[in-house]
Amino acid sequence: MEIGQGKDEKIGFFGRQWRWVKKKAVKMMNNVKKIGEDDPRRIIHSFKVGLALSLVSLFYYFRPLYNDFGVAAMWAVLTVVVVFEFSVGATLGKGLNRAFATLLAGTLAVGAHHLASLSGKKGEPIILGAFVFIFAAGATFARFFPRIKARYDYGVVIFILTFSLVAVSGYRVNELVALAHQRLSTIMIGSSVCVFISIFVCPVWAGEDLHRLLALNIELLAIFLEGFPKEYFQKMEIGENVVVSKEKSFLQGYKAVLNSKTSEETLANFARWEPGHGRFGFRHPWKQYLKIGSLTRQCAYYIEGLNTCINSEKQAPTELRQQIQAGCTKMSSECGKTLSELALAIQTMTKPISAANHLAVAKTATADLKTAMKTTVSNHTDVSEMLSAATIASLLITIIEHTEKIVESVDQLASMAKFKDTTVILEKSPSLHRAYVKPFMDIDGPHICITVCGPMSDSREISKHCGTVRDQHVEV
Amino acid sequence: MEIGQGKDEKIGFFGRQWRWVKKKAVKMMNNVKKIGEDDPRRIIHSFKVGLALSLVSLFYYFRPLYNDFGVAAMWAVLTVVVVFEFSVGATLGKGLNRAFATLLAGTLAVGAHHLASLSGKKGEPIILGAFVFIFAAGATFARFFPRIKARYDYGVVIFILTFSLVAVSGYRVNELVALAHQRLSTIMIGSSVCVFISIFVCPVWAGEDLHRLLALNIELLAIFLEGFPKEYFQKMEIGENVVVSKEKSFLQGYKAVLNSKTSEETLANFARWEPGHGRFGFRHPWKQYLKIGSLTRQCAYYIEGLNTCINSEKQAPTELRQQIQAGCTKMSSECGKTLSELALAIQTMTKPISAANHLAVAKTATADLKTAMKTTVSNHTDVSEMLSAATIASLLITIIEHTEKIVESVDQLASMAKFKDTTVILEKSPSLHRAYVKPFMDIDGPHICITVCGPMSDSREISKHCGTVRDQHVEV
Repeated sequence: MEIGQGKDEKIGFFGRQWRWVKKKAVKMMNNVKKIGEDDPRRIIHSFKVGLALSLVSLFYYFRPLYNDFGVAAMWAVLTVVVVFEFSVGATLGKGLNRAFATLLAGTLAVGAHHLASLSGKKGEPIILGAFVFIFAAGATFARFFPRIKARYDYGVVIFILTFSLVAVSGYRVNELVALAHQRLSTIMIGSSVCVFISIFVCPVWAGEDLHRLLALNIELLAIFLEGFPKEYFQKMEIGENVVVSKEKSFLQGYKAVLNSKTSEETLANFARWEPGHGRFGFRHPWKQYLKIGSLTRQCAYYIEGLNTCINSEKQAPTELRQQIQAGCTKMSSECGKTLSELALAIQTMTKPISAANHLAVAKTATADLKTAMKTTVSNHTDVSEMLSAATIASLLITIIEHTEKIVESVDQLASMAKFKDTTVILEKSPSLHRAYVKPFMDIDGPHICITVCGPMSDSREISKHCGTVRDQHVEV
Repeated sequence: MEIGQGKDEKIGFFGRQWRWVKKKAVKMMNNVKKIGEDDPRRIIHSFKVGLALSLVSLFYYFRPLYNDFGVAAMWAVLTVVVVFEFSVGATLGKGLNRAFATLLAGTLAVGAHHLASLSGKKGEPIILGAFVFIFAAGATFARFFPRIKARYDYGVVIFILTFSLVAVSGYRVNELVALAHQRLSTIMIGSSVCVFISIFVCPVWAGEDLHRLLALNIELLAIFLEGFPKEYFQKMEIGENVVVSKEKSFLQGYKAVLNSKTSEETLANFARWEPGHGRFGFRHPWKQYLKIGSLTRQCAYYIEGLNTCINSEKQAPTELRQQIQAGCTKMSSECGKTLSELALAIQTMTKPISAANHLAVAKTATADLKTAMKTTVSNHTDVSEMLSAATIASLLITIIEHTEKIVESVDQLASMAKFKDTTVILEKSPSLHRAYVKPFMDIDGPHICITVCGPMSDSREISKHCGTVRDQHVEV
């Protein structure tokens, strides 16, 4: 201790300041690293913006297209800074909004100028002022319409901007047309550079992000439901007061789903601007994504209730929990498997295969649980202990009922977005056995799992073959 | 019918088109009316933007301060269009961000220009390009930091914009300084006009909106809890299948609370930019609002579960429901009263008086319900019917426990924001009786309610006097 104190004194005021600065710098570097690691596309995006700006500015630097060099270059640079967004959809939306709003407002403003100039030198500013007032107030009010706000907000701002700019500029009409042409062409150049770079250099598709977010959110619920029985019934084995904190942290993932509405809606709005790409056609059913997202969120609300039960102080006694353990475990984990299957189906864009089966098993388990509860309830007299068990049972039943709705809406999505059907009918077999082909990703590459089932009416599993995919061949 | 058809034929193609246009126009007008009626401040805001723009443009129109008239006016107009936002906080935040970012970026860019000019004609564009690339990429990456994103996002965009603009402009350094001065002063004029109009003409304070939103959200939960027993137990009186749709619509209000996170955070961010005004000091504890908001949302998740129980097909039978009716009604309505009291306390910025009392009553009712459940459970054997009743009881208990946390955090807010204490100690009375003064608003103006209670340790109500407030006098 004393040696440390001596050192501290020797270092003095500036030394301590330096230490503080060093500590802060290390903290900031870690922060930068974390943000970059969380999503490496952020680093690429930063470079893309730098590239676009350098391109536009150098383009003007080397080829002074216009006499009034500074002003013309300005609009292209301004466009790049304001239009370039993280995803292709956002960039395209802003670019199109900007271009069309400029065109429309420019035309209207030239017209307004012409009208105002007819009324002589004195009347002109008054009439122009009135025009600016009316258009600005009207367009500002239009921004409060939810539909316009969602898709054309930026366009309306640019409309007001351009209209006012052209209206207040003191030029004559023929000069104005030249100016408008110049501005529009520079904006087009800026927008094109943005759109080009954002589509062709490591594109970030909002639609793909939404697709991944939806699968992730469903997967998070699945993780909770699959982990829940272990977490809840393990407590009883270890003892009431032992908190299994490590397990818990990964069970908390579903909390992100509770507040996912805004990000889902924003991504869907951007996705609608995007052209068809990869697995997503031009009229991909993004609305259905929002529907599934909303159902997923609803399910997360019930899970929040379940989570409160785990962490509640008043727990059902061990004996009671043992009686409901088998039923609850089956219900929760089978429901989790259903959701996990749905998440995988969305991720791989294949029709969900065994989701309905898992759900059926979960429903059967509900009946078992009810029987277990019956004996439990009649043997038990402490109400407050019984309530906790009953709530868990009841919430699980609600979750299973709700999962059915999610299954339905994912099925709808599958038919709307033409997900691949991986069911193969083995025609060689006399009784028309079916095989389900289920692709999945593992650390060491793509895998495939083929499940052979009984004939049409019989969905029991007969055999299962899993293997890796190498060079287009499957090694089972 | 035939006459109608005849008419339709006579009208012809254009007539039908005209009808369609008329129908659309009426629909749009209704939409406009609805948006205006929902929040009349929107109409005022539109006029304010129109006013600000007309002011700025006319100011330049009549007093051409600079030779290059169009360009100078442009920056002021641009600033007004981009900076003027709905609330004072948002406008002030954007204005300050814009001004400081322009200043900082301008200074840096002039420095960069000077450095680049030292390297000769050929090296200059390359060095400038490199500078633009580095600053733009770095600043773009900074926008991914959540803290910067929340408060300084616009400033960073303007930083990139100004730096690039000044860097690519082909001017010499001494010309640049003049240009920068001109730009900064026009931006200042534009920002000042915005801030002035937004503060002094019918101001919309984001802080006040947040304050009102918080009180409203708590009130919405209260409305549900107070209406829930009637809704749930009335069904049983009318019959299972009668849906009381009118009652229901106002019980659905709490759903807005579920997704309130984004709007609360946005308003809190804006509120932090606002100067002290009215009842809100400069360092008003906006963070505490977010905490209470998060607790309120949590409570809404449990209410969502309760709502599912109401609408579930599997209901507890009438007999069972009658047994739990008294307990549930008391719990739910007292909990609702607690929340309603809290909402009122926030709204009037007075310390909550009887919230704790109502909560205590609700807690006592919990014990009664448990006793009722005990007899119920032992007499009842159908598990699935029993589960529904148990879930409602259990969720109500959770909601009451959670309400306690909300009461605590509102108490914290009350002491942080120095809410008025309306407790008056009646010193004339020998046993130090206390009186609570509770102001509230009614259709016909401000009212006051004075509750006289027993001495310190005794919170029983002795008498209650309510009356209207007229000209600073209370008529009881």
